[in-house]
Formats: sequence, C-alpha cells, structure tokens
Amino acid sequence: MGYNFSAGPGIMPAAVVEQIKRDMPSYKDSGMSIMEISHRSALYDEMAQQAETDLRDLMQISDDYEVLFLHGGGTLQFTNVPLNLATKNHHVAYLNSGHWAKKALDAANRIDGLTVEDIQPEKTGYLPSIKNPSVGPLDYLYVTTNNTIEGTTYHQIPKINTPLVADMSSNILAEPYDVNQFDLIFAGAQKNIGPAGMAIVIVKKNRLHEQPILSEIMDYHLEAKKHSALNTPPVFCIYAAGLTFKWLKQFGGVDRIYEQNQEQARTLYDSIDNSKLFKNDVPTRERSLTNIVFKTGDDNLDQQFVTQANRQGLISLGGHRLVGGMRASLYNAMPNEGVDALIDFMKRFEIDNGGLH
Amino acid sequence: MGYNFSAGPGIMPAAVVEQIKRDMPSYKDSGMSIMEISHRSALYDEMAQQAETDLRDLMQISDDYEVLFLHGGGTLQFTNVPLNLATKNHHVAYLNSGHWAKKALDAANRIDGLTVEDIQPEKTGYLPSIKNPSVGPLDYLYVTTNNTIEGTTYHQIPKINTPLVADMSSNILAEPYDVNQFDLIFAGAQKNIGPAGMAIVIVKKNRLHEQPILSEIMDYHLEAKKHSALNTPPVFCIYAAGLTFKWLKQFGGVDRIYEQNQEQARTLYDSIDNSKLFKNDVPTRERSLTNIVFKTGDDNLDQQFVTQANRQGLISLGGHRLVGGMRASLYNAMPNEGVDALIDFMKRFEIDNGGLH
Repeated sequence: MGYNFSAGPGIMPAAVVEQIKRDMPSYKDSGMSIMEISHRSALYDEMAQQAETDLRDLMQISDDYEVLFLHGGGTLQFTNVPLNLATKNHHVAYLNSGHWAKKALDAANRIDGLTVEDIQPEKTGYLPSIKNPSVGPLDYLYVTTNNTIEGTTYHQIPKINTPLVADMSSNILAEPYDVNQFDLIFAGAQKNIGPAGMAIVIVKKNRLHEQPILSEIMDYHLEAKKHSALNTPPVFCIYAAGLTFKWLKQFGGVDRIYEQNQEQARTLYDSIDNSKLFKNDVPTRERSLTNIVFKTGDDNLDQQFVTQANRQGLISLGGHRLVGGMRASLYNAMPNEGVDALIDFMKRFEIDNGGLH
Repeated sequence: MGYNFSAGPGIMPAAVVEQIKRDMPSYKDSGMSIMEISHRSALYDEMAQQAETDLRDLMQISDDYEVLFLHGGGTLQFTNVPLNLATKNHHVAYLNSGHWAKKALDAANRIDGLTVEDIQPEKTGYLPSIKNPSVGPLDYLYVTTNNTIEGTTYHQIPKINTPLVADMSSNILAEPYDVNQFDLIFAGAQKNIGPAGMAIVIVKKNRLHEQPILSEIMDYHLEAKKHSALNTPPVFCIYAAGLTFKWLKQFGGVDRIYEQNQEQARTLYDSIDNSKLFKNDVPTRERSLTNIVFKTGDDNLDQQFVTQANRQGLISLGGHRLVGGMRASLYNAMPNEGVDALIDFMKRFEIDNGGLH
C-alpha cells in the first residue's frame, strides 16, 4: 500500500476509482462503457447535468453563473480568459504570485491590443495583495488562489471593486471560497476533480457576450449556449468529475473536507516546524493546505529523501523541477493515514541523517 | 447484447475496455490507477512513448514527422492548423466537402490576415477534387478524408504539388493512407482511437517553426519540444489510445482492418442497394466505409426505424440532425455480427413496412 503525493495528476478517491471500474464495461446497463456513449444521448445528458448540479451544490453556485466543462486543461484558459473577458477596457491586471500566475500573465501578453499590468508582491517572500490596482478601469484582476509550486495560498479574498478572475486549479473544492466574489473561476481537473484533460469554468452570465473571438471552441458564450457540447466534450472526464462531486457530497461537502485539509496540513506543518532538518519558509497565513513544500537546504539530501520515500510507497514527493526540495500534495482524496505515514518517514529520515527529534 | 453505431464517441474494442477495467485500481502494480500517475513519472513516459511507437508502426510514420497527443479534440485543431502552418504565404485552400470541412474553413476565416479559398465541388453530389488550386502559392490545401455526416470519403489521394493537410478524424486507422503525402494529419480521438478529449497531430518536422503564435499551448513546435507535455497531457486518453493501437496491431494492422471494413461496408451497401425501401445517394467511389448513411425518403419512417432499432439493441442509428435519415458508423471496433444484426433488422423492417425483398 502506498500514498500518492503527486501535484497532479494526483490521487483520486479510492471509491471513485472503484466506481469507474464497476461501471465498465456496461454503464447503467446500457451495454456500452461511458467512453462509448454519444454526447447526443439521454445517458450523456443526464450524467453531465447531474455533475453540474452536484458542483453547483458543493460550491453554492447561483443561476447568475454558467458552469462549463471544457477541453484543454487549465492552460488553454490562460488564453481563453482574456479573449473572452478583456473585451471592454482591454486592460487587465495579474497578481504575479508564482510560476503559474506568471504563465497566465505571459499568455495574456500575447494578445494584441491588451494592456497587462504585472502586480508584484509589496514585500519579498509574501504574496501580492488583492486590492484595487491604482490603474483602471480594468476588465479584471487575476488571482491564482493556490500556487502549486511555491506552496502559497490566498485563504481570504477581500471584497474589492475590480472584477476578479481566479485560477483555482489546485485548491478548488479544497477550501470554501464565495463564488459570488468572482466573475470567473477556472480549474484544471487533474488535482481535486478527476482525470487530466478537462477544465471547469464558472463564469458570470453577464460577462458573456456575442462578440466573435478567434475560435468558436474557445468562446465561453457559445460553449454556454451548447452546454459545453459545441464539439464532442471530454465525456469520460466529466463522468469521473461527477463521481468525485458525489463522493465529496457524501463526505460532507467543502466545509467538511476543509476541516480535514486544515487538520492534515496543520499536522504536517507542525512536523516540519518542529524538525531540525526540514523547513518551510512560507509566511504562516499564506501557507497552502494542498501543496506543502519543504526542504533540508541540501539538494543531495532532498534527493535522497525523495528516492527513499518512494521506496517506502510515498510517491512523487519531489518538488517542482524549478524549485527543487520536496512537495507533498494533500488533495481532498488524501487519507489521514497518508499524512501520518509521511510524517513517520520524515522522523525516521531525520534520525538516520543525524537530526535530533 | 447490443451494437453501438454512434458516430462518436463510438464503439471501442471490447478487449480494450476490459483491459482498462483490469488496470484499475492499480496500473502495473503501482498502487495507482493510470488516472493518478504524474506526467513527470517513468510510468507515464513509458506508456506515452509506447503509444507513439505503436501508432508510428501502424501508420508507418517516419522520423520526418512529429506525433503529438493534444488536448482539445479535433475542433481546436481547426484553429491551430492555420495558426501554425499558414505563416509563410498566409494563403490556404479548403476542399469544402461537407459540414466539418466547412467548420474548419470558417475557423480559418476568423484568422486575421489569412486568405482562405473555398473550393466547391465541380459536380453537384460529388466531392471537390484534390488537385493544385489555380491560385497560390498556398501554405496548404485542406482535405477532410472522411465526411462523417455526408458519408463520403476520399479513398485515393493523388500526388499534387500543394502541401496537404488532412482531418482524418473519422477514418484514421480505418483505411491505409500514405502519411508521406501529407504535411499534417490530425484526428479527434473519439472514433477509431479512444475516449473523447484528445486529438492526435502528425506533423512534418520541417513545417514547425519558432515564430510565436497566440498561445503556447496551441503551438505545435513547443508541444513537439515537450513531447506533448507542455501542460498536463490527457493521460487517460493517451493510455486508452495506446491500448487501441496494441489491439489493432494484434488484429493485423491497418491493412487487415481495412479488409474487414471494406467487407462490412460492401455487405451493408449491397443490402441498401438491393432494398426497395432504403437508399444511399453517394456516388459509389466516394462512399464512406466508416459512416454509412441511408434513408427511406420518409422522415417519419426514418424516425420509426431509429426508434425500433434502438429497442433491438442497435443503438445510435439516427443520422446527424442536419441531414436526418440514418447513419451506421462502422468503426474499427464494430464486429461483423453487428453489421449482420443491422442488416437483419433492416430486412424485417422493410417487410413490416410493405416493402418486397
């Protein structure tokens, strides 16, 4: 038995994987697997509709918003968001909070006629603040709620006047955010939702417009009109996401999983903070619950840790190649036993490597 | 027991679905399902590399070509193809052979500074010919090898001087084409390859360039450099595609399945041609092997046929909503028994509805 700490594709609930297995080869006695059913069939409609309903329940998404299940992962949304939303002021601002925020900013910068403000942290080692930028009017202020590589999170979203767009790829459904504070939320599926190959977009209806953009398939307005089936949608991903939503509802919803996530993260951060070998430099109030980074300060020792942990069934603990060190991704599906096993291993590793505990 | 005639998502080989089921919850004894493994792991690399190798074997793709497994289905390629390939002459031509060809043409027309020739059939009811257009020089001539809605196919690709781009979504791996005749081939996965949510792009290396385009994620050159993992790739789709490639190799490859496809199609067309109730108007040499359209000429009767067939386990036989009638999609995974069952049902339906046989 092992535990998968991969930053994504990452661990899925065991019950969801078992359900997927059970549903093959015949989905709901149709004689067909879910992968083979037409997206113009009642079976598909019912499945996709249920997934949407369950996500709306979990995140309390009102009828003011469209929920889209789209191709292309989160990264395509880096381009789709400005194409769809930056059509009035042609002026946007990005909180440059980490690697993926910078990627989104770079993608916006490729768009002709768009002015993109790059908002840096006011204080080194902290996240840039969410506040009305001094320039404007803006089509949106872009925030990456959780920075997967750096292990930082905006846990609180202050109320401001500038419309907010959020990349929630790595902590959607992991902690409660008020959807009404955002004009658009998107997330790649491969962390807390399901298999890689899909993005979820939650967008305020009043931000959609009929102005044509580069490509129909990138147009949120058209996708909303067609209930995400403008082309053949990623059926299997939607289905697996729907099973995850059901699982999370049965678990007790976002508030309940948030408690577990807080508890797991607290235990792991305590263990790091109490260690003489490992450390995490993120200011306490910005520490991520889902991607917990730590290091020894010695690259070779870090590498040994990752390799030995892997042999013990603690998988994918290496930090992102850009920053090194270690990273434990504690997505919703991570059982407490996984965190305990990691902490046990860290203690043993520290003793074996001359640390005192 | 039923048979799935859906145009896509469509029938997959039963052995592939069984293998997917068997591989859960632990892929290759890793303790993780294929959906949960990191795309930066050796397990992923080995899986994706094998899928590419098997596709190269099946289609005899030389080292002059890159093979990409991308997000977004076929439709996103309607935009990606001109963005990536129409960068020299800014002039392209599209064979307007049907609904999806027209969609691709419309997508190209949305691109600033691109001149798009709309090549119509010379003779009504026939496909436009593949030949050097009278205008030029062109970045490419675009051909849809199989027209899923109209049930027509270019079985022969003449040698011409204009570079060819092909949308092979609905007959890739179903009949043999010489890859060397094309500068680029793409296909959505959901017909002969695997679950919806992926496109395969086979592109000549000398057509790739470093000129930046709108979005990194749409850039074939960058995707090739990163072996299709510029962002998290659609891992599950690549895996399922790989199983399909293995299945097809074991079956005997494209030449062998082509024989079966020809035989199945011949049997069904014979049955239609010998019927007094059903007809197909496609000129013989342009008839599709994969999407066989037929109708009675009476919309109500067509509807009855589709409904009654469905009750008999012959599923998704309705024609596309734009053209009505019936459509039997005989993708590679369709067993001969499925075609026989359809023909039996057609005969009974004809007798029940006053036809003579």
